[in-house]
Amino acid sequence: MSDGLSYAAAGVDLDAAERTKEGLRALVASTRDRFTLSELGQFGGLYQVPDDIDGPVLVSSADGVGTKLKLAFATGRHDTVGQCLVNHCVNDILVQGARPLFFLDYLATGEMDETVVQEVVRGVAIACRDNGCALLGGETAQMPDFYARDEYDLAGFIVGAVARDRVLDGSAIREGDVLVGLGSTGLHTNGYTLARKIVFEVMGLGVDDELPGTGRSAGEELLAVHRSYLGVLRRPLEDRIVHGLAHVTGGGIPGNLPRVLPEGLGAIVDRGAWEVPAVFQTLQDAGGVALGEMDRVFNMGVGMIVVVEASDARAVIDAARNGGVDAWTIGSICQGSGVTYR
Amino acid sequence: MSDGLSYAAAGVDLDAAERTKEGLRALVASTRDRFTLSELGQFGGLYQVPDDIDGPVLVSSADGVGTKLKLAFATGRHDTVGQCLVNHCVNDILVQGARPLFFLDYLATGEMDETVVQEVVRGVAIACRDNGCALLGGETAQMPDFYARDEYDLAGFIVGAVARDRVLDGSAIREGDVLVGLGSTGLHTNGYTLARKIVFEVMGLGVDDELPGTGRSAGEELLAVHRSYLGVLRRPLEDRIVHGLAHVTGGGIPGNLPRVLPEGLGAIVDRGAWEVPAVFQTLQDAGGVALGEMDRVFNMGVGMIVVVEASDARAVIDAARNGGVDAWTIGSICQGSGVTYR
Repeated sequence: MSDGLSYAAAGVDLDAAERTKEGLRALVASTRDRFTLSELGQFGGLYQVPDDIDGPVLVSSADGVGTKLKLAFATGRHDTVGQCLVNHCVNDILVQGARPLFFLDYLATGEMDETVVQEVVRGVAIACRDNGCALLGGETAQMPDFYARDEYDLAGFIVGAVARDRVLDGSAIREGDVLVGLGSTGLHTNGYTLARKIVFEVMGLGVDDELPGTGRSAGEELLAVHRSYLGVLRRPLEDRIVHGLAHVTGGGIPGNLPRVLPEGLGAIVDRGAWEVPAVFQTLQDAGGVALGEMDRVFNMGVGMIVVVEASDARAVIDAARNGGVDAWTIGSICQGSGVTYR
Repeated sequence: MSDGLSYAAAGVDLDAAERTKEGLRALVASTRDRFTLSELGQFGGLYQVPDDIDGPVLVSSADGVGTKLKLAFATGRHDTVGQCLVNHCVNDILVQGARPLFFLDYLATGEMDETVVQEVVRGVAIACRDNGCALLGGETAQMPDFYARDEYDLAGFIVGAVARDRVLDGSAIREGDVLVGLGSTGLHTNGYTLARKIVFEVMGLGVDDELPGTGRSAGEELLAVHRSYLGVLRRPLEDRIVHGLAHVTGGGIPGNLPRVLPEGLGAIVDRGAWEVPAVFQTLQDAGGVALGEMDRVFNMGVGMIVVVEASDARAVIDAARNGGVDAWTIGSICQGSGVTYR
């Protein structure tokens, strides 16, 4: 019937989906490791449980990139958000001592733009390789009249593993332990709804305008890739000197550090111990945001907190700096609860 | 500063997010099993690799619900789409012989409506329990100016396991094997962009209007829960009589069955072998959709295809029917490639 409806006419292009999948094949293949048993196109991805982990516990996490995606849309730069997503997930399981095994992504678009999908997945694959993590599968969904043209949502899912007797659960944390803060690259993937409002509405900047104090355009500064701390923490974890780790995401330090503290213990954070990156000061000033609100929404320059015995702080700081990540002793563990700034 | 900006003013309510998380705690807890080591609120979910699987291979898949979600929005019924999502994922790893271990969801909303989030996750938890799968974690993202008010996207990630020597990869499929089709409950989670266009635009129906031929309202018919085939296939898989499985999702039988066929083999499908449910005939007639397009977009009443030796077809059909799932011998494996209808 010549005037009949088809899936393509309704807005879903199965051929484009097939072509896109072909284009992703090499990217996905580049992340394979010796435990990866499947290839793209099977219903599920297959991954052998590694035989070098004793009593393996799987550690899994799901996350999204949030409205940082709007920066990718505004700048047309789509190869970094996938890196943010993978690194975020890697950090989320790293805090329990796990090394990443594999990753899957969910990419939902209104209309399938093959180039954009390719760029997004390229970012995912780059970070998977960087973290030694197989990109085992994923779903690219075409959802017309759901997402605006040229927009998409991106979520990811990671599975890692750790030997059962090496799971980090904070139970080793003691009063007097110190907090080592590891530098973030900027906002990482949190607080973008507020940051965008301040930068693009209150300040009225465009993505190519310089974000005052940062020496970079608003687009560059706000798209900075969420840092993975796997590389710099591998050695301290192997050496078993880490008592606890907190990934500073939504909720900031006060929202995340207490999640790993044992009952009866709190933390004192010394504001003067590190230099808050310019982007946060600019956001605070321009938005008239209360300091407590800044602390709760943003990482304020500290993307990961490592809890160690005072005598081990130096080793963690050195490991971080040798890996190109700034690090400082930013506080300590005390009796009480929650986080107190001084 | 009294007129300063806050995260809440920008549209993200961290307190609502926290309350919602509390409300989900019991739902999540209800899906725990003896391998679940973590509780809600940790950075990553912990799951012990089961010790009753020899040489365990992890099988993982990511999926979404697609624009079936629009039916949930239109009817205000949010407790079924999560079941569709979990069951879809369970089937996707079942075709490789895996039993589900755990599941994580990604739920992205514009504004956090606690009741809706609760209902969606309740559906996810129901299906997790039904499939013996732990709801190990998830992410609920608030993305204002991304999703329309009262709308959301939902994706899921599943991890299952299978003994390495029991991975189903289609290599056991031989010429002369027969295809057993297992009945679907309706559209499952595919073809909704086309179906909605036909039902709500071409036919001009509302969700409460009867969908001709089905005896149900359009809303009920189109929200029917995607069926999990885990229960009825457990026994045939244990008995090792299954040569291959194909989950009939986007692409229909012609798009999915060939994914599991070895090189040099194709399939003949006998159209007369099963009764295509009324919903598909109604969609085809009202939309003037070509039959080949129907085959490629919809499951046409067959949600799963089981490839077995002819002498084992009866056992699979009986197992399915005993579990309340209709089943028929719908074709056979032949030399060639792809799917031929007759």
